[in-house]
Amino acid sequence: MKFKSQKGLLIIFTGNGKGKTTCAIGIAIRAAGHGMKISFIQFIKGTKETGEIKALSRFSDLIDVKVMGRGFTWKSDDLSKDEKAAQKAWRHAKNLILSGDFDMVILDEFTYAINYSMVSLKDVIETLTKRPVHCHVVITGRNAPQKLIDLADLVTEMHEIKHPFKDGIRAQRGIEF
Amino acid sequence: MKFKSQKGLLIIFTGNGKGKTTCAIGIAIRAAGHGMKISFIQFIKGTKETGEIKALSRFSDLIDVKVMGRGFTWKSDDLSKDEKAAQKAWRHAKNLILSGDFDMVILDEFTYAINYSMVSLKDVIETLTKRPVHCHVVITGRNAPQKLIDLADLVTEMHEIKHPFKDGIRAQRGIEF
Repeated sequence: MKFKSQKGLLIIFTGNGKGKTTCAIGIAIRAAGHGMKISFIQFIKGTKETGEIKALSRFSDLIDVKVMGRGFTWKSDDLSKDEKAAQKAWRHAKNLILSGDFDMVILDEFTYAINYSMVSLKDVIETLTKRPVHCHVVITGRNAPQKLIDLADLVTEMHEIKHPFKDGIRAQRGIEF
Repeated sequence: MKFKSQKGLLIIFTGNGKGKTTCAIGIAIRAAGHGMKISFIQFIKGTKETGEIKALSRFSDLIDVKVMGRGFTWKSDDLSKDEKAAQKAWRHAKNLILSGDFDMVILDEFTYAINYSMVSLKDVIETLTKRPVHCHVVITGRNAPQKLIDLADLVTEMHEIKHPFKDGIRAQRGIEF
């Protein structure tokens, strides 16, 4: 780990505006540009057909991508399956965070798993607190719990000023997914 | 241009929080994942030694990167040189936007060039209004002018909740640059 001399930050991108996952992709790319080793775990999305996953495949030497969700929870056909998927993803993430093998672990849309009580916030806080000192952790999703914000080093809230869906424009390839 | 059937959006990432350029990188990567052709122009930064520029070089078939600034304006040694650099970058951007050859043109930290009156807002608005219909334009920077926001389809304001500089932690490689 070339980057062990750095203090790993806990970074949170939250809020109702577009840009949280987009920002997580950007931060992964920026870190990869410096040769860091990154784990990028998607907690809600269940498809690898997104632009970000296709593009991140060019960094398979540096960025380990896992798509571990089952689609969007609020449309769920089976919440117990969602819960199992979220718990499996968290066990995987926890192992990687504690292993010390990664310079950065990104938990995309992770707040939903916490807010739906699929994953224990107490376990998350304990894991983050005892993680290796060099390991950056990036968490995205709406309504980040206050205890997570209290623990974080850097928190940005994405605030929606305007969104094209409201003007009847559909989600577009390359922009929304 | 495979994507001519889509309506190009004007997207703005503004506000005082971290994540504007990071988001622009993410959106470029996501679009590249779908095979879009992208121009990424940095208006303020003057170095190619950032993580994002190193990483984007893996997409040289799809993303054309130009670093056209001279560093940060508020530390400038010569404002007239900054102004010339900004005007040159804008002429380049304008040509690309109007050419129709790109699916997406990203103007990173462009609001500073407008807010410092180095580039005419009227010219920017006219260019965006008459651009080819399929061309997405992404603009980042603090204090986006209201006229630009009025014209935009999607606007996210990055709001700083917490920033590590305030705790005396220095800018870190892979996070801030």
